[in-house]
Amino acid sequence: MAEPIDFYFDFSSPYSYLASEKIDALAGRFDREVRWHPILLGVIFKGLGTLPLVRQPGMHDYSLRDFVRSARFLDVPFRMPMRFPVATVAAARAYYWLHDRDGALARQFAHAVFRAYFAEGHDISEPSSVLHMAALLGVEPAPLSSALEEPAIKERLRKETDAAIALGMFGAPWIVVDGEPFWGADRLPQVERQLERGGF
Amino acid sequence: MAEPIDFYFDFSSPYSYLASEKIDALAGRFDREVRWHPILLGVIFKGLGTLPLVRQPGMHDYSLRDFVRSARFLDVPFRMPMRFPVATVAAARAYYWLHDRDGALARQFAHAVFRAYFAEGHDISEPSSVLHMAALLGVEPAPLSSALEEPAIKERLRKETDAAIALGMFGAPWIVVDGEPFWGADRLPQVERQLERGGF
Repeated sequence: MAEPIDFYFDFSSPYSYLASEKIDALAGRFDREVRWHPILLGVIFKGLGTLPLVRQPGMHDYSLRDFVRSARFLDVPFRMPMRFPVATVAAARAYYWLHDRDGALARQFAHAVFRAYFAEGHDISEPSSVLHMAALLGVEPAPLSSALEEPAIKERLRKETDAAIALGMFGAPWIVVDGEPFWGADRLPQVERQLERGGF
Repeated sequence: MAEPIDFYFDFSSPYSYLASEKIDALAGRFDREVRWHPILLGVIFKGLGTLPLVRQPGMHDYSLRDFVRSARFLDVPFRMPMRFPVATVAAARAYYWLHDRDGALARQFAHAVFRAYFAEGHDISEPSSVLHMAALLGVEPAPLSSALEEPAIKERLRKETDAAIALGMFGAPWIVVDGEPFWGADRLPQVERQLERGGF
């Protein structure tokens, strides 16, 4: 099997959510695995001095429209959250802690977080919400709750975000196939071409 | 026949060039005409306080890569110009002057300008280059040359750019189908969906 695809995302990014619903199946058609990497997009924006799309001049209304249309185009359930964007540090830390214990469970958790936020209108930013989402998958709250404040898990998320920055990530999702970076759910057809032909 | 599609673009915008090679055929499949509107994207950026993608923090190298890949993906010849972006005021004025005389010729001229710049490595910013490109299509240089400085033509381009701003345009290309705006050559599949179903 060829090298895995790297999928960098923030749980508060609508286009990351859309890509999250498609990327494993797409990669699977080419016998590829996907490594999921939740990171903190706010840290990246701060480093670059940039803003989320919805806060860029002139782009607010268009972006909201494009989220909805893009979701329908990809046939993914979507409802714009009332609070947006939100902090995703607890969800991202929880992901890595779960991943070190059970990769498949971490993947299920990531889907649950994205869907809770972008399809079901739930909060995902509070640690209590994160514990609740994990509990629905059978994860005991107490050890996860302490894990969220462990230095090792904090450091893990910092390292993943730093790795994304080193790869040139400036927006989400950021998908790397054999060294070739693709930005945005709208680049999934090009990711497919890359997987199919090994280049452009 | 239903209402025409409006296609707002700048001759110096790579994604506008890519869209320009596809939009008429796409619209034609749904019995639609396309109204082409060259505008000055720099004026729009200045009004918003924004920058071209290649000058946005972190986006330079990725954008250049994405131009090339997107062109290959759409099967459009593309070579990144040495000088980029360039002033397109003369080309845009020439377009409107030609359009008032011969719509089909203006369309040919627009294709010639885009291809000269993005496929053949020629300058398109100097009035002399614009006159040369028009001459290759049989347009006499002298009347076009004076037209480029006529107040009515200057005003026409200003009005078209103002209209684009009023429509919410913040980037190019900007494609409006039945009141629904789409930004970018990568939204052509969504434009197609809009044409096919009349909505999302």
